[in-house]
Amino acid sequence: MRKVAVVGVGMTKFGPSEKTQVEMFAEAALEAIDGSNIETKDIQALFVGNALGGFVEGQANIAPLLASELGLSADTPSNRFEGACASGSVAIRDAFMLVSAGYHDLVLVGGTERCTVMGTPMATRAFAMASDSRYEAFNGITFPGVFAMVAHLYSQKYGIPLKKLKERMALVAVKNHKNGTMNPLAHFQKEITVETVLKGFVVADPLQLLDCCPFSDGAAAIVLASEEVAKKLTDKPVYIRGVGQGSAGPLYRQKDLTVPAARVAAAKQAYGMAGVKPSDIDVVELHDCFTIAEIVASEALGLFEYGTGSEAVERGESQIGGRVAINPSGGLKAKGHPIGATGVAQAYEIVKQLRGECGARQVKGAKLGLTDTLGGDLATMVNIIYGI
Amino acid sequence: MRKVAVVGVGMTKFGPSEKTQVEMFAEAALEAIDGSNIETKDIQALFVGNALGGFVEGQANIAPLLASELGLSADTPSNRFEGACASGSVAIRDAFMLVSAGYHDLVLVGGTERCTVMGTPMATRAFAMASDSRYEAFNGITFPGVFAMVAHLYSQKYGIPLKKLKERMALVAVKNHKNGTMNPLAHFQKEITVETVLKGFVVADPLQLLDCCPFSDGAAAIVLASEEVAKKLTDKPVYIRGVGQGSAGPLYRQKDLTVPAARVAAAKQAYGMAGVKPSDIDVVELHDCFTIAEIVASEALGLFEYGTGSEAVERGESQIGGRVAINPSGGLKAKGHPIGATGVAQAYEIVKQLRGECGARQVKGAKLGLTDTLGGDLATMVNIIYGI
Repeated sequence: MRKVAVVGVGMTKFGPSEKTQVEMFAEAALEAIDGSNIETKDIQALFVGNALGGFVEGQANIAPLLASELGLSADTPSNRFEGACASGSVAIRDAFMLVSAGYHDLVLVGGTERCTVMGTPMATRAFAMASDSRYEAFNGITFPGVFAMVAHLYSQKYGIPLKKLKERMALVAVKNHKNGTMNPLAHFQKEITVETVLKGFVVADPLQLLDCCPFSDGAAAIVLASEEVAKKLTDKPVYIRGVGQGSAGPLYRQKDLTVPAARVAAAKQAYGMAGVKPSDIDVVELHDCFTIAEIVASEALGLFEYGTGSEAVERGESQIGGRVAINPSGGLKAKGHPIGATGVAQAYEIVKQLRGECGARQVKGAKLGLTDTLGGDLATMVNIIYGI
Repeated sequence: MRKVAVVGVGMTKFGPSEKTQVEMFAEAALEAIDGSNIETKDIQALFVGNALGGFVEGQANIAPLLASELGLSADTPSNRFEGACASGSVAIRDAFMLVSAGYHDLVLVGGTERCTVMGTPMATRAFAMASDSRYEAFNGITFPGVFAMVAHLYSQKYGIPLKKLKERMALVAVKNHKNGTMNPLAHFQKEITVETVLKGFVVADPLQLLDCCPFSDGAAAIVLASEEVAKKLTDKPVYIRGVGQGSAGPLYRQKDLTVPAARVAAAKQAYGMAGVKPSDIDVVELHDCFTIAEIVASEALGLFEYGTGSEAVERGESQIGGRVAINPSGGLKAKGHPIGATGVAQAYEIVKQLRGECGARQVKGAKLGLTDTLGGDLATMVNIIYGI
């Protein structure tokens, strides 16, 4: 298989937007194309992550419309990948494999999503479509409820009193909001304190408002190229070193929600393909849809020992400048979470970090980065390792 | 690249069903797995076509749930592909490429969809999500309207009076319904006459009720294997010889709806990869969502000269036993059209035909088959060529 590099990235500001999914995508895509020193017509295939377009905009089969909007020719295969909140990373992994295999030399991968237009009740309903419709969503459990259970299970399993765990969870929010202030594309760009988090209204006990990521609008895009093509286009190629994807079923079939089986499988695949270990990773963008989600993800990814992820936050180990910077972009928590775009936005951040282009939030000397994207009730997990 | 074969197929009966998408998929998948002489645990990845699951069942991210239902392990990547009515074929093409490249040796590809529970008004609304939401669906044009325009354009372009064209379109319906009587899995298994078609109520002039395919429920699945693995599993491997996929944008950007650019591109890719020409093809399953759709597809695929597709029907050239058998299964028109399952069901029929297992509807001596699947307003086109 051939080496594959990211040669250009683009991203809209995340947050409420009046633009359509197509318009946001085009904005991000044209930035990525321009930054790749190519012309749009050079793109040989399009891979798009989008989760809720049918529901939100009445726009389901969006991929060929995006291709047309960009002016791509009729012989450009254009696919929409729907893996809930992991849609964007699912698209990147598939694109990587096809370029690696030699099917394409230069492809565009992106994600786009509108969420804010729905408002919270409708958005909650829409997001719940990513869970199991038979035994979960229709019986009243939505994502805050699932991660509230994860927090309770974590507290019990490791004997960490809920009050202490909540304070540490709040520190995740504080860290990611702080990082967000240094990211001009972040949805939230305002620091918060532990006190603010703990004063927030309860969404699903023990999760309070600021333990939860927002609904956001936005798009992100990257251009992937085979090594040979990449070297002609840029002197800063960022290579995809490993990919992994796992799957797990409805919650009732999952043994331990604090150790998501799909993530363990995906991470093992990605580390194995890259030939690296967790301690080699300098910078991570992981799926902090809720503060507790960051803690359990950091453990299943091998960044911290099981049961120590919340202490690690307290010790500042996941801050920029800490042992491993987690979510320097602000993460889903502060950068925002436009579902289908999220995985691609994680890639955007890691590529920018590895290129040393992140200004105030730069992780110094970062050479190896990891993305972690979750779709559904711990159901679809994708990990991708990037290196220079 | 390695050769890739279909080693097993499965399909539910198409038509109204009380089962969920997951249940229907499992039924088709287990038949395909059983027929492949493998165990479920041998499956290394899952590729699923599904278009409307979020809308119809509140079940969007269905792929990992299907993997779990089958008992696949957590390290099985499971993806949902959404390319409207072409979703199933999009999934097959992607799976083929990844097996061909050596990423997997044995994978399951399927499609599943529930439509009938919506009823016609809601289904029409849901299907319209596959068109452009900005300039088409929200302005009142739905799929029957689009293909009614195609019929008018075709009549004008080739100087075929509408009355004559309608009679020939009716003959497409008559042929496909006749074929459906020989397919025990078809939604409709009753012969019709030209008179019945021409007496039907008008859906979108000149299309009458029986010019339109039904909304159906159903699932289909196939198992793909690398050549080496396939030879150990079956003495009747059916190889995927070529694949192609094209894209086109909103209708207003398409030059000539009677010659869909995305299909022309997809067919060229598929014929090119297979190294065959249209006249080599013995049996075709193509996207007859409307009778006129079969006529224009048969031309863009090179089976008949442009402008002669309707005459060819009249001369019986597309019947079983004719020059090239088109839709021996009954097609979307009579076999039914459970969106995400349709492309996979086309593959099911072609594989059965090439294996000589189609009983009364067998195309004698069939050695090379073609599938043609359309998604959206002539937007996503996939062609796949199968051979023994």
